[in-house]
Amino acid sequence: MWALVQEHGAPATLERLLAEEFPDDATRNSVLAKRKGLDPRRFAETTMHRAARLGARIVVPSDDEWPGRVDSLALLELEAPGRINRDVRPPLCVWVRGGWQLGEALDRSVAVVGARASTGYGNQVTYELAYGLVEHGWTVVSGGAFGIDAAAHRATLAAGGCTVAVLACGVDRPYPSGNAGLFERISEKGLLISEWPPGSEPLRHRFLIRNRVIAAATVGTVVVEAAARSGAAQTMSRVLALRRTAMVVPGPVTSAMSVGCHELLRSRPDATLVTSALDVLEAVGRMGEYDQPSPRGPEHRRDALDEESALVLEAVPPRGSIAPEELAARAGLTLRTVLRRLSLLEVAGLVERRDGEVALARRAKAAP
Amino acid sequence: MWALVQEHGAPATLERLLAEEFPDDATRNSVLAKRKGLDPRRFAETTMHRAARLGARIVVPSDDEWPGRVDSLALLELEAPGRINRDVRPPLCVWVRGGWQLGEALDRSVAVVGARASTGYGNQVTYELAYGLVEHGWTVVSGGAFGIDAAAHRATLAAGGCTVAVLACGVDRPYPSGNAGLFERISEKGLLISEWPPGSEPLRHRFLIRNRVIAAATVGTVVVEAAARSGAAQTMSRVLALRRTAMVVPGPVTSAMSVGCHELLRSRPDATLVTSALDVLEAVGRMGEYDQPSPRGPEHRRDALDEESALVLEAVPPRGSIAPEELAARAGLTLRTVLRRLSLLEVAGLVERRDGEVALARRAKAAP
Repeated sequence: MWALVQEHGAPATLERLLAEEFPDDATRNSVLAKRKGLDPRRFAETTMHRAARLGARIVVPSDDEWPGRVDSLALLELEAPGRINRDVRPPLCVWVRGGWQLGEALDRSVAVVGARASTGYGNQVTYELAYGLVEHGWTVVSGGAFGIDAAAHRATLAAGGCTVAVLACGVDRPYPSGNAGLFERISEKGLLISEWPPGSEPLRHRFLIRNRVIAAATVGTVVVEAAARSGAAQTMSRVLALRRTAMVVPGPVTSAMSVGCHELLRSRPDATLVTSALDVLEAVGRMGEYDQPSPRGPEHRRDALDEESALVLEAVPPRGSIAPEELAARAGLTLRTVLRRLSLLEVAGLVERRDGEVALARRAKAAP
Repeated sequence: MWALVQEHGAPATLERLLAEEFPDDATRNSVLAKRKGLDPRRFAETTMHRAARLGARIVVPSDDEWPGRVDSLALLELEAPGRINRDVRPPLCVWVRGGWQLGEALDRSVAVVGARASTGYGNQVTYELAYGLVEHGWTVVSGGAFGIDAAAHRATLAAGGCTVAVLACGVDRPYPSGNAGLFERISEKGLLISEWPPGSEPLRHRFLIRNRVIAAATVGTVVVEAAARSGAAQTMSRVLALRRTAMVVPGPVTSAMSVGCHELLRSRPDATLVTSALDVLEAVGRMGEYDQPSPRGPEHRRDALDEESALVLEAVPPRGSIAPEELAARAGLTLRTVLRRLSLLEVAGLVERRDGEVALARRAKAAP
């Protein structure tokens, strides 16, 4: 679906799907299965109505408040090349409840996540991290779960900062319901967001899909506590694949809730051990320095590019700038494709615009 | 002094010094200052007498029980090239109290060291590490101090294993005296060792000098707890410079006694986070696999060689073996020098003997 929208734009894609013009059988089967006899127009109306009642809004990529950082998901063909479906593509839209501009709230943001069955130690560390991050003007993002997630949201609210809960269900369906009061306060003082429309259930597979947005929308992710063989390893893999800063808080080796953290620190040399908000700030870099290249440098980032982006990047001259039209000719791609890829390469910090032309980003150029 | 003994042998060096034949003024001043009006022959007699009364013995490099691993200190010109004095040279001798053969006891040994002001957490982790190491037949080496050192010795004795206390004073002068009972038990069930003769005081500078023996005599060193800006960083630098395995136990980020450990893990990516005896065993490798090359590989070990050793190593052919005489001719060094350097290169695992000839060690050869 994401590829269709990239190709034709959202309105034209919608028209085609409503007219049951499908590019292939796989798309047909997938769309018809999801529709399940629903009338799409009716469903859209109900949903918009529901959203309006909640005071929720829908944000799409062309909106000013779209968080551009999530588009870098499009640059990645994560570990398993067969699985480049929606779970690694940017969301098509985000439903939002709360007063902040979404992009602004996420601009300087760190995710703080961890075990649902957190300990007093983990909660205490989370509180201190969140307070320190708020003090330096950072937004704290988490997943709204029990344990570390809830502690991160609560501490951020208590410190008077902005917290964003990224949900795996509709922004009207607080899950877990034990956190309903917390979600209410987040919608008043921070942001509740979801890529699924109001009314959507917290289906199991949505949590993994949601996790990619937490990783992509933030400058880095801190895991505070994690049990052995927990989801933390998958979270960190994604964070690192997206060239975000992966951070881990150690704990007593005698605590089951720190075993996963120590496993991560032992197995992922590119994860950073952090003990305080200052360590986190040092790791993510100060204002304007974030989205810094991974320790392995820009050439590694380029390895992760899809084929079209790589062709575009290769066609940019090592010095000086080039017009997009000339770039398209050099790369052997349509101007439309080149422009689309350029936005993504720009988000990833690999190219920059100069007076309407395109040049390699200073940092990318400086590296070998 | 070490260089003189290497050059002339110990008896000839002693004769010369007694006859006040000094190679240079620096040596003259240093020897006369240390002698301080003492009669050297008388001093030697008193010391040997004292040692005999204690049941202590002196072990020198030509003895079978000499722990060959400490000779690798000779290969290093640590960080500060101006300071290549006794604090980075192998000891000339080791005074020993206890029933074990020194070399045998140290063959499969790990150092477990840490804060004097250890916490209950640190002591508990130390006990569990020591028990696990003993269970797998490893010797636990430490420095006999309060806190983690004492916990390591005690747990090893309690587990029925061999523990070696490396002292910064004579083996008859237990320091700190609060550990006197512990030292007694170590001399009965393990080994008390020192490079200073019986009667020597625990002078402040001797602790740093002593630390290099703990690092060199063991396969790896574990730091269990350390305060901020403690000596742990220096200890780990030396361990890594000697290509030993540097290991660190994390702890609660809220504990002052783990701050130094987390500093180490953050600043030394070549230090390994360990949470259990199994992690330690994995890091030091199983029997016969220890003294493994550092993560940065053999070419890095070679960088640390002194000039003569490097010349000898370069002259060894990439395939097959070579006679020491031919090696001397190729390297442009005397046969005596070549033989001395070869023993050190052999200890470091870079060359091996084959039927009286010399070849590159299989591991060193396999690496790029």
